[in-house]
Amino acid sequence: MNYRIIGRFLAQILTIEAVFMLPALGISLGYGEWAAVRAFLFTILIITAVALTLFLICRKAPNALDAREGMICVGISWIVLSLFGCLPFVISGEIPHYIDAFFEIVSGFTTTGASILSDVEALSPGILYWRSFSHWLGGMGVLVFLLAVAPGSKDKGFTMHLLRAESPGPDVGKLVPRMRKTASILYIIYIVMTIINILFLLAGKMPWLEALCTAFGTAGTGGFGIKNDSMASYSPYIQIVTTVFMLLFGINFSCYYLLLMKQFKAVLKDEELRMYIGIVVIAIVLIVINIYGTYGTLGETIRHAAFTVSTIITTTGYGTTDFDLWPAFSKAIIMFLMIVGACAGSTGGGLKVSRLLYLLKSLGRNITQMLNPRRVKGIRYNGQIVSERILDNTNAYLAAYVSIIIFSFIVVSLDNNTIGTNFTAVLSCFNNIGPGLEAVGPTCNFGHYSDLSKLVLAADMLAGRLEIFPILVLFSRSTWKR
Amino acid sequence: MNYRIIGRFLAQILTIEAVFMLPALGISLGYGEWAAVRAFLFTILIITAVALTLFLICRKAPNALDAREGMICVGISWIVLSLFGCLPFVISGEIPHYIDAFFEIVSGFTTTGASILSDVEALSPGILYWRSFSHWLGGMGVLVFLLAVAPGSKDKGFTMHLLRAESPGPDVGKLVPRMRKTASILYIIYIVMTIINILFLLAGKMPWLEALCTAFGTAGTGGFGIKNDSMASYSPYIQIVTTVFMLLFGINFSCYYLLLMKQFKAVLKDEELRMYIGIVVIAIVLIVINIYGTYGTLGETIRHAAFTVSTIITTTGYGTTDFDLWPAFSKAIIMFLMIVGACAGSTGGGLKVSRLLYLLKSLGRNITQMLNPRRVKGIRYNGQIVSERILDNTNAYLAAYVSIIIFSFIVVSLDNNTIGTNFTAVLSCFNNIGPGLEAVGPTCNFGHYSDLSKLVLAADMLAGRLEIFPILVLFSRSTWKR
Repeated sequence: MNYRIIGRFLAQILTIEAVFMLPALGISLGYGEWAAVRAFLFTILIITAVALTLFLICRKAPNALDAREGMICVGISWIVLSLFGCLPFVISGEIPHYIDAFFEIVSGFTTTGASILSDVEALSPGILYWRSFSHWLGGMGVLVFLLAVAPGSKDKGFTMHLLRAESPGPDVGKLVPRMRKTASILYIIYIVMTIINILFLLAGKMPWLEALCTAFGTAGTGGFGIKNDSMASYSPYIQIVTTVFMLLFGINFSCYYLLLMKQFKAVLKDEELRMYIGIVVIAIVLIVINIYGTYGTLGETIRHAAFTVSTIITTTGYGTTDFDLWPAFSKAIIMFLMIVGACAGSTGGGLKVSRLLYLLKSLGRNITQMLNPRRVKGIRYNGQIVSERILDNTNAYLAAYVSIIIFSFIVVSLDNNTIGTNFTAVLSCFNNIGPGLEAVGPTCNFGHYSDLSKLVLAADMLAGRLEIFPILVLFSRSTWKR
Repeated sequence: MNYRIIGRFLAQILTIEAVFMLPALGISLGYGEWAAVRAFLFTILIITAVALTLFLICRKAPNALDAREGMICVGISWIVLSLFGCLPFVISGEIPHYIDAFFEIVSGFTTTGASILSDVEALSPGILYWRSFSHWLGGMGVLVFLLAVAPGSKDKGFTMHLLRAESPGPDVGKLVPRMRKTASILYIIYIVMTIINILFLLAGKMPWLEALCTAFGTAGTGGFGIKNDSMASYSPYIQIVTTVFMLLFGINFSCYYLLLMKQFKAVLKDEELRMYIGIVVIAIVLIVINIYGTYGTLGETIRHAAFTVSTIITTTGYGTTDFDLWPAFSKAIIMFLMIVGACAGSTGGGLKVSRLLYLLKSLGRNITQMLNPRRVKGIRYNGQIVSERILDNTNAYLAAYVSIIIFSFIVVSLDNNTIGTNFTAVLSCFNNIGPGLEAVGPTCNFGHYSDLSKLVLAADMLAGRLEIFPILVLFSRSTWKR
């Protein structure tokens, strides 16, 4: 294990963080919010000092790293990013308690959107901007960003291991042979789509700062609301625009690349995309039938159902209505969508649709083999045989996924809430959604949880965003032995 | 697929069922409960007629069967057993609604112990006996019984496939090379232990019929109470005896065989047994700390905690106290124990401790391989390398397990109960426990669920008892194609 590699990485990551704080500083200056200005200035200074020190110590780090170092780099970077990223909240006094601020920024970077705040509208504009921007940065990934812009190493494994550890999905999608270029393409698509989203929101007469923050939350599938009622008071036009863009950002970005390459057929035949659309449509129909009569018109019912299904399956977490008041059947569907999550290679969280497909196909094969022990066959996904290694990893992923949910649920239950509250709090944080049900429902927040629970839930968010293993290996003995 | 094999099997199974109804008939006669006498007589006549017809039609069935036919035989036998087994409830008028009666007997045979009755004490003695006896028969398995007593076939696969499909655990334990002899040994241990349990209960001055019923529920890890407050009003002596015997019946029966063979070391070193004891002890300690102060003395606290931990992990389901009133942390531990379940090769349900061990070891290996991609190593269990086939099956089992829980939870949610109620109802039925929490807690029953939910929960019980696949294959297209 070469610790200098990790040190240099952290230095680079922190530099990016400091640079991305500048717009927030500018906004605070513009609005004359001096407490926030001071907070951002102090934080930027602290981060720069730490980054410089790390650079000096770790200058001579090699340019190659193995799978283990790649995972550790990703895991630690995200934690360090959050440890410093929450300082503006604390220094400005807007979220004075450090663990609350840490929870909030982890929720931001991991694109969860769960908040401890009861009055979001009290935040100053610069702080609000930074809070929402963390979604955008975390959505596509800060290391992917680093790969896309930093002057490069020649080592292939270098970029491969990092991308694999930070990107969501059972199999990392290579768009082009060079990983560095893949990272750039992904970010360009991401930026262009975000800009289009902002333009649509501005066309709906949304003020520009709100449009920026809303688009950041949509693009990163984050979901931090900037109003206390999330998106309930916005016009139907804005709600519909957001529904569409949430769904778009929940799709595997390689589909957009294929569209750019004019490979329309490949996109239409993509198994994950089909299943994703299928689940969305069926869920909307079932919920509309189940809640029919709750709202004035069928149109309004469909709008709320479509928005809620989209916000949950893409793991965004905005809300237009209090779905905790819906009947149990609709809530059960919402919990199912929480687990499924978005497509691999999107900015969304959850188990991922493709992983669900792998699991179901693997289960189907097992049943067939039980019935006909002599027949052995491979599993096909989008026409290709899936390697047994990936299937094996997917199964291990499910085991880790279930174990983490159970463990977190038990610890969080030390806070004496209902089963529904604790269970959906864990589901929501671990799958990077935001709201849960009952006492963490769309109209509530996570402020009532104890510090211990907040830390466990923050760890769940990180584990969910980084797909478990980069966080799990930090606790594994075999990681740290020579 | 040879349907005559299945037909002959059903005939044999039904004959056993009719024979085992005779004691219940006798008890009803003794107590002069004429409605029950008539119900048992009618049922026995119907079953005999059906069995005879099947014998005549399927006389010429071959004596060999493959894995697929073995699974189907087991799945269908259990369903047919239940379809006829609930007739005494209906005909006697003591549970007049057929679906309720079906739910009750499935709950019996699968050793679940979930009841739709609010007043158990109103049942007549013969009906009560039959209800509890179904636990005992289902606990070790009716096909295992058939194998142990029926005149034999010479085909090895014949008995192997059936035992494999009906016995709990990831790998079927062969005690001796001949499966038929294994079945006999298992039943002899089972009968002897049940008799000892009855003697202990009689020593505590329990009336003989109550002692019989209680021991049946304990031995089969079933848990149908014969009092409205389950075991709360019995003496501490009886509660402690039951705690100990529940734990004993949750242990892999091959351990008892090894003890008889004087292989004490092998038993002491058994990984599953150690983990089972470890979980029980830790769970009791955590709950005692968490509920401290709820009961008068520390002794009483420990007694209730130990009883509850034992009743849940062994998936029995008796109760001495309303643990739904305990704090959320204790309830979370109870839900964890519901999932873990007892040891493989016991009469208990749940995921099984050994399966949990396989999953954790498999997960650990995956992490190690992620960190050191070139190192490939086998997994050891009790000193032996586990075959990859079994690991693969265990992973598929988890996928099926999670899928069934999610699916059932969604359907059951059509009944507008709380998340905690619906979720623990599914956990409880699927893991063959009995009580859940909230509206299906220890002082409540399942009577308020709709017929659809009752059928889904009954299917869950069957899937749980038969370890999913024998039920799942009945719904699989590839089962029925030539």
